[in-house]
Amino acid sequence: MSVLVVGSIALDTVETPFGKVEDALGGSAVYFSASAANFHPVQVVGVVGKDFPMADLDLLRSRGVDLRGVAERDGESFRWSGVYSFDLNSRETLETRLGVFADFRAVLPEEYRNPRIAFLGNIDPELQINVLDQVESVELVACDTMNLWIDQSREALLRVLARTNILLVNDEEIRQLAGEPNLVKAARWVQERGAKTVIVKKGEHGAMLVDEESVFFVPGYPLEEVFDPTGAGDAFAGGFLGYLASHEQWSGEELRSAVVFGSAMGSFAVEDFSVARLSDVRMDEILERVREFRSLTTFEVPLPEAVRV
Amino acid sequence: MSVLVVGSIALDTVETPFGKVEDALGGSAVYFSASAANFHPVQVVGVVGKDFPMADLDLLRSRGVDLRGVAERDGESFRWSGVYSFDLNSRETLETRLGVFADFRAVLPEEYRNPRIAFLGNIDPELQINVLDQVESVELVACDTMNLWIDQSREALLRVLARTNILLVNDEEIRQLAGEPNLVKAARWVQERGAKTVIVKKGEHGAMLVDEESVFFVPGYPLEEVFDPTGAGDAFAGGFLGYLASHEQWSGEELRSAVVFGSAMGSFAVEDFSVARLSDVRMDEILERVREFRSLTTFEVPLPEAVRV
Repeated sequence: MSVLVVGSIALDTVETPFGKVEDALGGSAVYFSASAANFHPVQVVGVVGKDFPMADLDLLRSRGVDLRGVAERDGESFRWSGVYSFDLNSRETLETRLGVFADFRAVLPEEYRNPRIAFLGNIDPELQINVLDQVESVELVACDTMNLWIDQSREALLRVLARTNILLVNDEEIRQLAGEPNLVKAARWVQERGAKTVIVKKGEHGAMLVDEESVFFVPGYPLEEVFDPTGAGDAFAGGFLGYLASHEQWSGEELRSAVVFGSAMGSFAVEDFSVARLSDVRMDEILERVREFRSLTTFEVPLPEAVRV
Repeated sequence: MSVLVVGSIALDTVETPFGKVEDALGGSAVYFSASAANFHPVQVVGVVGKDFPMADLDLLRSRGVDLRGVAERDGESFRWSGVYSFDLNSRETLETRLGVFADFRAVLPEEYRNPRIAFLGNIDPELQINVLDQVESVELVACDTMNLWIDQSREALLRVLARTNILLVNDEEIRQLAGEPNLVKAARWVQERGAKTVIVKKGEHGAMLVDEESVFFVPGYPLEEVFDPTGAGDAFAGGFLGYLASHEQWSGEELRSAVVFGSAMGSFAVEDFSVARLSDVRMDEILERVREFRSLTTFEVPLPEAVRV
């Protein structure tokens, strides 16, 4: 049973302090599936315009990603362009053209209706619901969202949340959603409205997992060269859910490991433009990075005798 | 042999979303020594004006802090007032009145001249050098600084850095100092100019230790109630250096544990105004929090067989 993802399939024009790409393969469903495909089969739901260079998707297809759920419609493909600040911690969106994505409603292929895990990427909550309504059985639903939907489609978003097991958002988004600056309290707010597991992505500061029993942190990987931060959050989600999909059981321990695998994939994503690095990374490199994450946070708790004044 | 600290002894007026205090005991030397005294004897170098409520310092004295190096001068004590944003992540300084601190040059008591560790709090680098010049022997020198000195006293600050083993600064400061947005690269820049160990304090995002061999992260403690963030960085430094002072040897392992003890003390500091919590916290509570830090970051690295697609 696969991981189903619905999200954008985009042509991104991105400028960072280190370079620029035009009309590069991007979008939440693309980054997610390029990442998750390292762990588990993925099925993509999305839409492109007639102008889309379909051969670009061969990169995903060659990795076993099922693209039968990608519709081709008259009109322009979704395009996003943005420029990053010198420290890569903020970006300015220059243009967002929804194109065929604006009024897209999905029809799920028959083979897509019983995924083990469904990831509702950062899209209109009404479209997230539209997809969820066509899923006949699913063990785990995760979703992402953004400021636009929190502002403009709050009611629909809360309906999604009620049907979601895991919410993955960034720190600004959860603060805005919950109206609460404290991240732990904001996570509790979300838990009361559905998603019992909350993952707060904090960019270079790492990620936080809050479930009903505990809180877990993983730091940002201390890369000396960050090339392009675009898609890091979706690569995280892909690594996280792909890792879970490859496991029979999901205890607290698997969830924690999955967060680290997600972080590892996020750290690979930013090493190159588009999904270049996510598509050529090997499992031994992923495991090596996971081990590095462990050595980044390991310390000894001294015996009480050792700290008496 | 003690931990020597030079820094401000201030009267702080602080407003947070949760309350307000006026002319409360504050300043880098005060927060540092209230924290470090939990681990090791501390000697304070500083200055107050004739208006200073000297009885306020009894709180430190009662914990064994040596205040013979605190001079009393004609004039006003150092005063700072600030107000925090709703999410406590930014603050506006309303007023800084240096008073007697403006042209203070210290004369170290004889008993202060052979500390094991010296901490040069966030003050004019010329005053940091003035103190360092009077120290006859010391095993470890750590220093803090801020944007003001990086801007206006860069040359003196670089002279301090050349005589420093450990630099403790926040993320904005090290980026400004090194002119480099990437924190690992910025730490390397610092290492080339003196301090071989760099600790980057990231507020709610925790702290990063960069030495010549490795990088270590500790997350911010996920407090649901942050009362007043003032002094958290100095409480961190006090816990970090106090812990080191209480140990014979300083290997990579002790440094990592020290960072966690520093983080624990920072997390206690913000639970109340001024140094109230730092002064009544017990060692068993500190150790319990250190154990919580460990459970916050512990995860299993799966065997390679477990992650084959």
